[in-house]
Amino acid sequence: MEKKKRGIIPRKIKGFRDIDAVQNQLRWHIVSKASEVYRKYGFEHWDTPVLEYADNLGKYLPESGTVAGGVYSFPNPELEPVLAEDGKELRDEHDKVIMEHHFLAMRYDHTAPLARMYSEKIWNDVQKNIVHSGNAPLLRRYQFGPVFRFEQKLDPGRFREFWQLDFDTVGSEDVSADAEAIMILSDAMKAIGLKPGSFIVKVNNRKLLSGLLQHLGLNSPADEQNILRIIDKADKIGMQGVSEELGKGRKDDSGAFIDGLHLPDDLVRKIMDFFISFTEPQSRSGVLRSLTEKGIDTPLFTGGLTELERIDSILQNSGFDDSKVRFDPTLVRGMAYYTGPIFEVESLDFYRDRKGRKRQVGSICGGGRYDGLVENLTGIKVPAVGASIGVDRLAELLTLTRQAPPPPQGPVVIIVFDDELMPEYQKIAAQLRAAGIATEIYYGQKRGLKKQFQYADRKNAPYALMIGSNELEKGVATVKDLWLGKQQTDIKDKDEWRKKVQQEVPLDELVDFFTRKMS
Amino acid sequence: MEKKKRGIIPRKIKGFRDIDAVQNQLRWHIVSKASEVYRKYGFEHWDTPVLEYADNLGKYLPESGTVAGGVYSFPNPELEPVLAEDGKELRDEHDKVIMEHHFLAMRYDHTAPLARMYSEKIWNDVQKNIVHSGNAPLLRRYQFGPVFRFEQKLDPGRFREFWQLDFDTVGSEDVSADAEAIMILSDAMKAIGLKPGSFIVKVNNRKLLSGLLQHLGLNSPADEQNILRIIDKADKIGMQGVSEELGKGRKDDSGAFIDGLHLPDDLVRKIMDFFISFTEPQSRSGVLRSLTEKGIDTPLFTGGLTELERIDSILQNSGFDDSKVRFDPTLVRGMAYYTGPIFEVESLDFYRDRKGRKRQVGSICGGGRYDGLVENLTGIKVPAVGASIGVDRLAELLTLTRQAPPPPQGPVVIIVFDDELMPEYQKIAAQLRAAGIATEIYYGQKRGLKKQFQYADRKNAPYALMIGSNELEKGVATVKDLWLGKQQTDIKDKDEWRKKVQQEVPLDELVDFFTRKMS
Repeated sequence: MEKKKRGIIPRKIKGFRDIDAVQNQLRWHIVSKASEVYRKYGFEHWDTPVLEYADNLGKYLPESGTVAGGVYSFPNPELEPVLAEDGKELRDEHDKVIMEHHFLAMRYDHTAPLARMYSEKIWNDVQKNIVHSGNAPLLRRYQFGPVFRFEQKLDPGRFREFWQLDFDTVGSEDVSADAEAIMILSDAMKAIGLKPGSFIVKVNNRKLLSGLLQHLGLNSPADEQNILRIIDKADKIGMQGVSEELGKGRKDDSGAFIDGLHLPDDLVRKIMDFFISFTEPQSRSGVLRSLTEKGIDTPLFTGGLTELERIDSILQNSGFDDSKVRFDPTLVRGMAYYTGPIFEVESLDFYRDRKGRKRQVGSICGGGRYDGLVENLTGIKVPAVGASIGVDRLAELLTLTRQAPPPPQGPVVIIVFDDELMPEYQKIAAQLRAAGIATEIYYGQKRGLKKQFQYADRKNAPYALMIGSNELEKGVATVKDLWLGKQQTDIKDKDEWRKKVQQEVPLDELVDFFTRKMS
Repeated sequence: MEKKKRGIIPRKIKGFRDIDAVQNQLRWHIVSKASEVYRKYGFEHWDTPVLEYADNLGKYLPESGTVAGGVYSFPNPELEPVLAEDGKELRDEHDKVIMEHHFLAMRYDHTAPLARMYSEKIWNDVQKNIVHSGNAPLLRRYQFGPVFRFEQKLDPGRFREFWQLDFDTVGSEDVSADAEAIMILSDAMKAIGLKPGSFIVKVNNRKLLSGLLQHLGLNSPADEQNILRIIDKADKIGMQGVSEELGKGRKDDSGAFIDGLHLPDDLVRKIMDFFISFTEPQSRSGVLRSLTEKGIDTPLFTGGLTELERIDSILQNSGFDDSKVRFDPTLVRGMAYYTGPIFEVESLDFYRDRKGRKRQVGSICGGGRYDGLVENLTGIKVPAVGASIGVDRLAELLTLTRQAPPPPQGPVVIIVFDDELMPEYQKIAAQLRAAGIATEIYYGQKRGLKKQFQYADRKNAPYALMIGSNELEKGVATVKDLWLGKQQTDIKDKDEWRKKVQQEVPLDELVDFFTRKMS
């Protein structure tokens, strides 16, 4: 057997994508429409690097609580001093600065880098006790771009590089900022083009969940995390499955046994009663009433309830009624860094998958309050609330439910009939471009007419311009309406078809013609 | 001495930056204005991943010819099969698939990933001999975003993450595409706001340089690379220095000796004569005449000259005269992958540095023809030409020469006088936003008036809205014109100043008022 040699094969890394003009337009449609809404609420556009020190990003992946193995991380090629807690260089017993290649990581979201940036800005003033928890400055910024996660098991439709579009308010404990975040998500979805009634914002408060568990005597954070993790699976395993996992455990579909938390039966029943009482959607005032009637009086629970009441009144004042925003006490939203109100936009639209089955995309974006993130880096608590739109996920939803804007309009394509006429083509192109009309001369290697028209179609060109020496003598161009041409599939007669989709336009009227047609 | 503990200090990696709202606006001003020009010439917006297989990116850093150590690279956490030259898995002697963690690299430009994407698209058809050098398909795309280079010595103003904005035509050997690239760069600079006459596009052809050396009997690519590398330093070391480095060598400013190429004296003189004859700027036709009169008849030289002549006539036809585009046979533009016409935009504007010295930024963008890049990945030659704008460098130029657009306008800021009135503030904010007026209520923790106005100023807010319970009773708001307020520094009398910059506006006229003022 002959030995084969190692090759260099052109290919993308698994889980990474090239984005073509059509996908890109959709991506930027989402980014620009949502950004406009963010700005309308006073958020500024900031940006942070793609790479950060790994220890600065911490271990707070919103979905899983950890980033174990889930991040692209590698040692900095630069050798740098190790720093002590006061920011000064660490030295060994011989007073020599200790050097190492610090670990770097590609950002896995926009929240951890925001916490780093904000912390870096206030760091010196925190050391001098000028800035403390109660006076930490206000920052409202939005940011978008790619984030990176090394997911070992890559489910269909999941990627290792994808775009997020975040907005955050750091330095405000005011629940008004939470209410606004909810309004912004709702407004952004509308601006992007989702039809009213095709989506709903669901809101809960983590303090209610913690307060309930506290009320039931479950005070340890580990208990809370475990219980919430199981409740978060209700969509997948059903209420019965949740109940079993809180208790003795259950057999999954494959027959494997999943051990439970072994909570006493009456505790499980009390937890389940609470959640089951909210599985049917109610009005916001209805939910508030039900919560009040539970008679739970731990400070966390009553505090969380008061916040929801304030959010309700702000939403009401600003015109966001039950058809736009619902309260859902069963919403958990991962287990990581949230400390107060949490919210999520759910798509209610159906689409048909490849096998014709009716499906829903479900959650398309969300966020919440996280008052502990800056504390990890500075030692002082700084209240913060924000949300993130999964741009690529939303793009997929728009495509699946046929709500995406039409693909971008290509340029007018000048067909190269005769290489000798290139200078004339270039003169015409310059005139059209000067008038703001996108124009391309076909410069491909193979210049058969079929190839050129295929190219124009691929680019979604609205018109092709044909000029041979005959036309040039007459001072005209033949303009072919490519979009119309695609629709006229029922005309069998070639002459008739040509008459319908082609016309002669005097060269000196081309600018007017296209200005009129393409505006 | 007490042992210090290792800390987690919030900080950026050296060479990386946070981008605030003002810098971001400038960045996006450049990207959107130039992209508009690219689209007008028929280029589509595509994107590729930030991460690629390292072997796919190759070793073609345009500036240095290699990426030795200059790239952020690390092993893929995923274990994958090693592929043979035919794309199939390599197996060991026991017929087991050979696995490894392939090296990944962060993109260092947008050209290498473009070559990978294009090559991946045609790969299968190349294997089947359907696609070959003469019929490789046409692709015209633009792309922008961050690129990453680990520069060990980081000069001031240089960064390890920076933005580039590229456009390329792959699959065209037509020199018209090169002429267009030149026009596009010129149009883009104008669209970005550079004043006519404040920049010039310089054009040369690598075939002229190679043809000249061939004519002088210097045929080896290594000789050519070495000679071009030295000529490229003319700006720094002067013509005398170039001459010495081509010959026996020279002492640099520090007194160190730099060994020369040891070319014979008459060869050095002939090379120098050629370059010196073009140090004074001439008209394009003048340069073409001088080049013709050199009487150099190697095919490369005459071919390069013919291409420049065609480029000249296309530029002339399209209205790009000597004031916009110059021919400069001394232009070398790095040594890497260029094979034909090369071009560069030079800023002619002066600015004053911190010490008051007059300075120029120099080259701000450029490009050229590279017919060999796709060949490295597919084995077939595919002609290509493109250019790249250094977005951050251009942003710096606009700032230094005071040509940057004014900073982004902030929102109307509603000052929180009285927490009790928050619902009223929120109603007003909702009304203003519904009318398209960006509005922010101050949600910071410390609500002293001074803090709030400082915040509004920091965000470049045009107006502040003040509503206390008195105002509310009267149904009015006090509107303070913050931009006007900043200008009125000469008014000492507080009442007079207030009268000038503040006015009462009825609440139900606020939308009209701001719509009129801010449009």
